[in-house]
Amino acid sequence: MRYGDVSAAIERLKPSFGDRLSLSAAVREQHGKDTTFHPVRAPDAVVFPNVVEEVQQIVRVCADLHVPIIPFGTGTSCEGHVAALHGGICVDTSQLRAVRAIRVDDLDATVEAGVTRKELNAQLHGTGLHFPIDPGADASIGGMVSTRASGTNAVRYGTMREQVLSLEIVLPDGSLVHTGTRARKSAAGYDLTHLFVGSEGTLGIVTAVTLKLHAIPEHIAAATCSFPELSQAVQTVIQTVQAGVPIGRVELLDDTQVEAVNRYSKLALSVAPTLIFEFHGSRGAVQDQIELVKDIADANGGCNFEWAERPEDRSRLWKARHDIWWANLALRPGSQGLPTDVCVPISQLAANIQAAKEDVLQADLIAPICGHVGDGNFHLCFVVNPDCADEMRRVGQVNRRMIERALACGGTCTGEHGIGYGKIDFLRQEAGNAFALHCTVKRAFDPAGIMNPGKITGEPFDAATS
Amino acid sequence: MRYGDVSAAIERLKPSFGDRLSLSAAVREQHGKDTTFHPVRAPDAVVFPNVVEEVQQIVRVCADLHVPIIPFGTGTSCEGHVAALHGGICVDTSQLRAVRAIRVDDLDATVEAGVTRKELNAQLHGTGLHFPIDPGADASIGGMVSTRASGTNAVRYGTMREQVLSLEIVLPDGSLVHTGTRARKSAAGYDLTHLFVGSEGTLGIVTAVTLKLHAIPEHIAAATCSFPELSQAVQTVIQTVQAGVPIGRVELLDDTQVEAVNRYSKLALSVAPTLIFEFHGSRGAVQDQIELVKDIADANGGCNFEWAERPEDRSRLWKARHDIWWANLALRPGSQGLPTDVCVPISQLAANIQAAKEDVLQADLIAPICGHVGDGNFHLCFVVNPDCADEMRRVGQVNRRMIERALACGGTCTGEHGIGYGKIDFLRQEAGNAFALHCTVKRAFDPAGIMNPGKITGEPFDAATS
Repeated sequence: MRYGDVSAAIERLKPSFGDRLSLSAAVREQHGKDTTFHPVRAPDAVVFPNVVEEVQQIVRVCADLHVPIIPFGTGTSCEGHVAALHGGICVDTSQLRAVRAIRVDDLDATVEAGVTRKELNAQLHGTGLHFPIDPGADASIGGMVSTRASGTNAVRYGTMREQVLSLEIVLPDGSLVHTGTRARKSAAGYDLTHLFVGSEGTLGIVTAVTLKLHAIPEHIAAATCSFPELSQAVQTVIQTVQAGVPIGRVELLDDTQVEAVNRYSKLALSVAPTLIFEFHGSRGAVQDQIELVKDIADANGGCNFEWAERPEDRSRLWKARHDIWWANLALRPGSQGLPTDVCVPISQLAANIQAAKEDVLQADLIAPICGHVGDGNFHLCFVVNPDCADEMRRVGQVNRRMIERALACGGTCTGEHGIGYGKIDFLRQEAGNAFALHCTVKRAFDPAGIMNPGKITGEPFDAATS
Repeated sequence: MRYGDVSAAIERLKPSFGDRLSLSAAVREQHGKDTTFHPVRAPDAVVFPNVVEEVQQIVRVCADLHVPIIPFGTGTSCEGHVAALHGGICVDTSQLRAVRAIRVDDLDATVEAGVTRKELNAQLHGTGLHFPIDPGADASIGGMVSTRASGTNAVRYGTMREQVLSLEIVLPDGSLVHTGTRARKSAAGYDLTHLFVGSEGTLGIVTAVTLKLHAIPEHIAAATCSFPELSQAVQTVIQTVQAGVPIGRVELLDDTQVEAVNRYSKLALSVAPTLIFEFHGSRGAVQDQIELVKDIADANGGCNFEWAERPEDRSRLWKARHDIWWANLALRPGSQGLPTDVCVPISQLAANIQAAKEDVLQADLIAPICGHVGDGNFHLCFVVNPDCADEMRRVGQVNRRMIERALACGGTCTGEHGIGYGKIDFLRQEAGNAFALHCTVKRAFDPAGIMNPGKITGEPFDAATS
């Protein structure tokens, strides 16, 4: 498949967008790179639409001229989602920033794609509601929809999939559609909304999202607990989940990770496998949860069970958790991060984490382990020098082995980072003959192959010639 | 579109299936009718495969000869889902009844499509786990996937959509695919699993399902409370949801419904708008919930707050709730039921229910109202004589007005019953220009149009000539 003349598209868009269409190398490069080691693949131009009609206009021009479109949120994805593999026009959605409605009575809100999760929560201040999904980065809601983001709160509230009630989408032909309604449940036809959630901009551009909101828990308590052995920490999580404790968050940090966090965030956690818990609910519910979890932790050899009930102590703890990325990079000045994640059935979690840790040691790599372990989801964050081919080869091997173990025990090749172009082969392996159905979806919704080409399925396959 | 020769398909299947292929009028009619007023539309034959390979065999023959296939679970759907509108072969999945695995440690199970929810729960006895989705009827798990069933527990546990981790599906060409994994969350490609959930057998035949299981709550309490006015009952639910109370179930019955239930199930509830609550959780959590909800009910004029903490009292109450269908039919001997449902944003619930009730009175119809009101979902169950054209015209008007009001306030034309062929026009109205995307999905996955034709989108459109 050959794409059309991108310069013709740029010329057609210039009169409408003026200085909201950028050809500067710096802007293009910034939009062709995510936060990870993936090399820059800059688009030919970056356009900053202010309103949905402008998104439609861009898409119509690109459809007309058969030019690739790469939707862009905040660029905080992990698997090369924003790389302009075949050039084209990047549509930066950050200026679609209207909070169209907050409906406190219905516990929902409609926001444009460029609103970030922190902006949304700031707007919710004083309503008694919050939007709990928290992937760490202050990602845009549109981007979080597109990558099916989750993070620390997913064990309690689910992922983006569970939060999205309806979507406004510009399709690859420039038309605007709405999927879903504000009803909490529906049996009306195919679940188009959830087909777009996690579609990584390959089927259309999300321009607005209606989301569930949640009552801020009456009471929140956080605690840390360290364990002599990683397996004991994981066992504590497994038993907590199995006991049906509706825990708010439970995060695992291995000893390497704790050391990095202590150093970067000036904490004094024991350098040992550590769990960070958060409990949400009524006072009675939280008390019951705490007692049960503390018993489970004690039975598994947990020590240093420490409370952080004051909001400022909790904030400090979670800020440290969220700064893990920077803490890891600081372990090795000048390095880049290669974060990878898998998600496994929880009974398999300890074995998977342990094996990954041994692989890292054996391959002489730096890769702290952390995880949203209540879901069976964990990360290796390789701290790498991407220019060292031998190191990258070893990283690739450890990553592949981690994913293959996850698939072998019934897990997935990515719990929350997505496929981008970094994990296409693993998706192929995971899906087996269902991979063809992924291609069926892509071809049916984007027959011209202009929406973020080369991602998820890798289609159009013959793009190398474009 | 003309379909092929169904008798040729029958001849090709006979040698393999013997008396598991039925041509008897009684069997065919039973499979061409759901529990509602929809007229019989019998398939040409009913086949009872025992294993997945036999499902593939049937589908291959039908694909080869271009013969319609109608998947069948227990026939308890509501919108004509199983009607053989264009004839063809009905695939009764009831003999796919293996419970392939119950994995207590992972809180999941893999069952074949024909296992019913009660069978599954019986198999879970003693594990401390349960499968909470409860649409009333003892539906098959495959059917519940296909209709995206929900019911009384959805306010707490979500619908089938939230329970399904992965699916085994026979596609319209007879090939077998698996979607999803046992991981609790995944960002691996398009959400094929949830595209099949709710697809009503129009994209393939679900043969096995991996489901989430849930810990049986440590403590369960149920209560009833009646209110002078319907709006007060609804207001109590709205405020309960808005307060973030993680209530287990909350069901509304209007006065007509209470009267029918009292008569049929020999209860002595006050004949007034009534809520039935169920609280799940640790003892402390349940106590907190109860106090809060009781305060809310009191403030809204609730009276006769009555507890049912003993399991036998709870069972009696919920049995009565589940027998509503039969209680309603008993209001008018010889009648049939026409159940319809909508789901609206919760702030709109009182107005929608009130308006529907007034319409029913005005049109001189019998239609008790009940609902899974924590989700904003409610039902009118018209008790009808389908042979009376004038009555059916009035029913149609009231139904249409109820749905149009729901759509106008951001709701959906069906919360849990699905589209079948009964609500295609309403789906068209709800989806607007996104209706074309529903057709895109159907055509991409079933280009020959043999899977349960005439449902959801109504495709193939020119089937009248088949």
